[in-house]
Amino acid sequence: MSLKRKKISVIGSGFTGATAAFLAAQKELGDVVLVDIPQAENPTKGKALDMWEAAPVQGYDSYVKGTSNYADIADSDVVLITAGVARKPGMSRDDLVQINQGVMKAVSKEIAAYSPNATIIVLTNPVDAMTYTVYKETGFPKNRVIGQSGVLDTARFCAFVAEELNISVKDITGFVLGGHGDTMVPLTRYSFAGGIPLETLIPTDRLEEIVNRTRNGGAEIVNLLGNGSAYYAPAAALVEMAEAIIKDQKRILPSIAYLEGEYGYTDLYLGVPTLLGANGIEKIFELDLTDKEKAALDNSAEAVRNVMKVLA
Amino acid sequence: MSLKRKKISVIGSGFTGATAAFLAAQKELGDVVLVDIPQAENPTKGKALDMWEAAPVQGYDSYVKGTSNYADIADSDVVLITAGVARKPGMSRDDLVQINQGVMKAVSKEIAAYSPNATIIVLTNPVDAMTYTVYKETGFPKNRVIGQSGVLDTARFCAFVAEELNISVKDITGFVLGGHGDTMVPLTRYSFAGGIPLETLIPTDRLEEIVNRTRNGGAEIVNLLGNGSAYYAPAAALVEMAEAIIKDQKRILPSIAYLEGEYGYTDLYLGVPTLLGANGIEKIFELDLTDKEKAALDNSAEAVRNVMKVLA
Amino acid sequence: MSLKRKKISVIGSGFTGATAAFLAAQKELGDVVLVDIPQAENPTKGKALDMWEAAPVQGYDSYVKGTSNYADIADSDVVLITAGVARKPGMSRDDLVQINQGVMKAVSKEIAAYSPNATIIVLTNPVDAMTYTVYKETGFPKNRVIGQSGVLDTARFCAFVAEELNISVKDITGFVLGGHGDTMVPLTRYSFAGGIPLETLIPTDRLEEIVNRTRNGGAEIVNLLGNGSAYYAPAAALVEMAEAIIKDQKRILPSIAYLEGEYGYTDLYLGVPTLLGANGIEKIFELDLTDKEKAALDNSAEAVRNVMKVLA
Amino acid sequence: MSLKRKKISVIGSGFTGATAAFLAAQKELGDVVLVDIPQAENPTKGKALDMWEAAPVQGYDSYVKGTSNYADIADSDVVLITAGVARKPGMSRDDLVQINQGVMKAVSKEIAAYSPNATIIVLTNPVDAMTYTVYKETGFPKNRVIGQSGVLDTARFCAFVAEELNISVKDITGFVLGGHGDTMVPLTRYSFAGGIPLETLIPTDRLEEIVNRTRNGGAEIVNLLGNGSAYYAPAAALVEMAEAIIKDQKRILPSIAYLEGEYGYTDLYLGVPTLLGANGIEKIFELDLTDKEKAALDNSAEAVRNVMKVLA
Repeated sequence: MSLKRKKISVIGSGFTGATAAFLAAQKELGDVVLVDIPQAENPTKGKALDMWEAAPVQGYDSYVKGTSNYADIADSDVVLITAGVARKPGMSRDDLVQINQGVMKAVSKEIAAYSPNATIIVLTNPVDAMTYTVYKETGFPKNRVIGQSGVLDTARFCAFVAEELNISVKDITGFVLGGHGDTMVPLTRYSFAGGIPLETLIPTDRLEEIVNRTRNGGAEIVNLLGNGSAYYAPAAALVEMAEAIIKDQKRILPSIAYLEGEYGYTDLYLGVPTLLGANGIEKIFELDLTDKEKAALDNSAEAVRNVMKVLA
Repeated sequence: MSLKRKKISVIGSGFTGATAAFLAAQKELGDVVLVDIPQAENPTKGKALDMWEAAPVQGYDSYVKGTSNYADIADSDVVLITAGVARKPGMSRDDLVQINQGVMKAVSKEIAAYSPNATIIVLTNPVDAMTYTVYKETGFPKNRVIGQSGVLDTARFCAFVAEELNISVKDITGFVLGGHGDTMVPLTRYSFAGGIPLETLIPTDRLEEIVNRTRNGGAEIVNLLGNGSAYYAPAAALVEMAEAIIKDQKRILPSIAYLEGEYGYTDLYLGVPTLLGANGIEKIFELDLTDKEKAALDNSAEAVRNVMKVLA
Repeated sequence: MSLKRKKISVIGSGFTGATAAFLAAQKELGDVVLVDIPQAENPTKGKALDMWEAAPVQGYDSYVKGTSNYADIADSDVVLITAGVARKPGMSRDDLVQINQGVMKAVSKEIAAYSPNATIIVLTNPVDAMTYTVYKETGFPKNRVIGQSGVLDTARFCAFVAEELNISVKDITGFVLGGHGDTMVPLTRYSFAGGIPLETLIPTDRLEEIVNRTRNGGAEIVNLLGNGSAYYAPAAALVEMAEAIIKDQKRILPSIAYLEGEYGYTDLYLGVPTLLGANGIEKIFELDLTDKEKAALDNSAEAVRNVMKVLA
Repeated sequence: MSLKRKKISVIGSGFTGATAAFLAAQKELGDVVLVDIPQAENPTKGKALDMWEAAPVQGYDSYVKGTSNYADIADSDVVLITAGVARKPGMSRDDLVQINQGVMKAVSKEIAAYSPNATIIVLTNPVDAMTYTVYKETGFPKNRVIGQSGVLDTARFCAFVAEELNISVKDITGFVLGGHGDTMVPLTRYSFAGGIPLETLIPTDRLEEIVNRTRNGGAEIVNLLGNGSAYYAPAAALVEMAEAIIKDQKRILPSIAYLEGEYGYTDLYLGVPTLLGANGIEKIFELDLTDKEKAALDNSAEAVRNVMKVLA
């Protein structure tokens, strides 16, 4: 029964990390610490200060602190990891994995040292493998190390459907399993507008196009921006998961969860429907899949395992 | 008694413009159009799409459209101008004024053509002179051409005070007249924490330091970021003014308003307390100033006039 | 492109009407007028004033006015009808219908006179017949005369499911067709928790119990209160529909809509899934029903027709 | 660093208590327990259930439980006391004091037994004496036993001013010291619209009328309702104080606080400006008062002491 303020720390002060910090502050989830490496200390402080200066106008009480000192994340309730590099021209996928694995190791050590009771949500790509790395490096129980991908994939799918049908986003629900992006497994039969199956509202071909657009949702933004990747929707997804945990909301949201037999996989982080509450992932829901869906999920799991082979 | 959705257009898709678009969407002020020049069309579309993809998670119904086609701003209720360049090394202040004046002229022409009934809020620096330019170029009535500076300056002041006293930002009020930045005229005797005069809560010296920090608030962020300027708080300030107008809230907020005798100035845009509602600036409040305050305001007006001399 | 404030009028200042007025004000949907008969003028004014006095604390700008003068509802965007009597001991069902029909006639006349362009949402019971009455008496187009029942029935169903599963209400969706209460037709196969079919999460018997509890949801509250009927959830349901219309949200919500052939019924108001936007009911969704569901809906329609026979 | 949900208990399920429970649930301050005596158990459960059924529509996750069993308030973070009787015709003021003192004693015993770490906010009238009673009976430290009156009085004042000036309630601030109602001490020199002193915006006579209307604000509503007293604004005031504590907001709000020398009074509960945070009243602000204001406050203190003489 503590009345002290909650604390959310965001590792990585790039666009996604900064936006996540801002959204968490807006929701008054608690005080927010934005952390980056010493070389980025000043910009990190600048962004945090700018957010704090927005507080009187937006009316939120959350304090936002920018720092390069991990001691500042002490006793966080939730830690969001957005740190890491993006894939650049000439960089192999394996290079990316190894570089970001190194980042995860460094970050994990700090989190374990300063916030041993925190729940961690990982966004850094390739997210399944990076979440696995954080799980191993922190030694935290599996329910407190979670990856984000399905909330974002679902959001994109819903946004496309809302636009297609000219219907409020408030009434569209979607459902995505498996890995992020290419190997995403959308369950269109579990996707609805106001409870009405989308399959009855949108022709099959068109719905398939929307699914494919969702699959390539990240690349679509990358191509448009020309320099950088999406951050509004990814940050919103992270913060929705954080809110579910901070407020013990018992939300059903897709998470990248550590599987020990669920869906037939073991020692693997993969996107599945979960119950998020004060204890992080409080439950994994196992759905009956069609053969086609199970095959797609196997394919997704295989893709994750392939990435994991690169892990040092 | 129209029930059609409101429409807010944001000119300039840089950090401030994009953030303003996002904040307006979050508040469901209406549908949002983010506009930039053809060369920036793709990034503009990318940012808008990313915001729209965040809508299902954040739960807002506002559609966000990115475009380089001014026809898309047709019949906007409010237009926010963030376009223009920032001062770069080697650029004289006069160069800056003339370049941005050119931008304002081009933008004004488009707004006048496509949204002749809109209320315009200008953020581009030097904001007093740029607002004047837009006023002249659009030919709109003075109540519908407004500049932003005081909401931001006040927000910064309040944020600093809240941190100083460890008191909720919800309870701090400040008051700023005059130009943006250096020549800002803070009325500390009209600044309170929970209604208690700040002058009784903070020692005079320390309060003066806070005022000076506010005066240099923009530069502080510029120095920290190293590359770019503040955007969270400026965007929040713009959107608060837009909300007051869109929702006809009758807020008392400081605006850069066209003066015709108020405070003794004529044919000048300067920061004064105003009533913002459906008709834009519905009233200008004239405060009794001390001699010292009036002198500071004269100084501020003089600074604005000096900038205006550079206008073509 | 009017920036004037929206206006919502609530007819009937009993618990439901007053609560609806309060919820509409909280959401800043517009200014709110709470109307009752001259004999209830003072209590109506007292409730409205009390709500207005809460505005500075809750932070909403909507003005709430209490009145017995229908001229005050002039040019409302949306009118909510909660007026009418509740069934009392010794009163036959037919008496109730005729008394409330008289109330609807009187109210319709006033609305048609003062707010000829408003969209009307009726809550008064028996709601299907009362909505029909208002439709006939106002002469308004069918899309602008709507009844509420399904939003409330669905809300109750979702609340019961959320409690049963200990899952956030944010993730439960339900689906109800047909009349209010006894003859309600719940489509459990279109009901989900986080997109997962409830039929896979709750045993059939238990789900049937929850459906039955929903069917009797109104009576359960009446029995508990001992004196009066539910008002929080009914008012919330009314205001959600009003919000969808005022903000042109394009929500898919169940409404009591005038049918001209849909689902095989003609000249009948019955609960069906609809699209609510600026034009009121903008679309009726026709679902494929199982034989059992269609039979239940026929039964519901028959019950409504039986009530309508009593209409004068 | 507990992530368990917060818990707010509301003692007394009359209009004010029920409305406070509803507002606390809407704000998702935590789960809410609404308690009343065994004879009122069913209506209490009915109201709580009705609120819970509104949750899916309003979108809040707070569970609302109605009960007559005090064990259900176990480990509450904040307890709001609204129980007690209202003065009825033929009842002397002393009778009222003694009856409600008895209620406070009974309630205090239960709170001390089940929620020994809670912060208590008292609304029951005469509120200064009742808060004193709860302080003595619970034996809680003074910072955790608080009375409400100034937030409500201030809200009424601000609402009247907003209407008078046709200015947003968001920009009006007021300041009230002393007892509730008749002996309230409004500090109009500390009252502002957008930071502008009200004394410069409203003629002295008219401002005095508004002050007097505020003083009689409770009676005005009682007279209008004819049967009962205000509950929307009182409940909103209670919940604002609770929110400040639950979220550790460090708000400056007027509270009825236990004085030990502040303002020259000892062993007295009186309305003064306070800092509300996780530890309840974390600070009392002592303002310099004019002789006239101090005399009015003395008068208010005297009135409270007179009521306290009646305490058994």
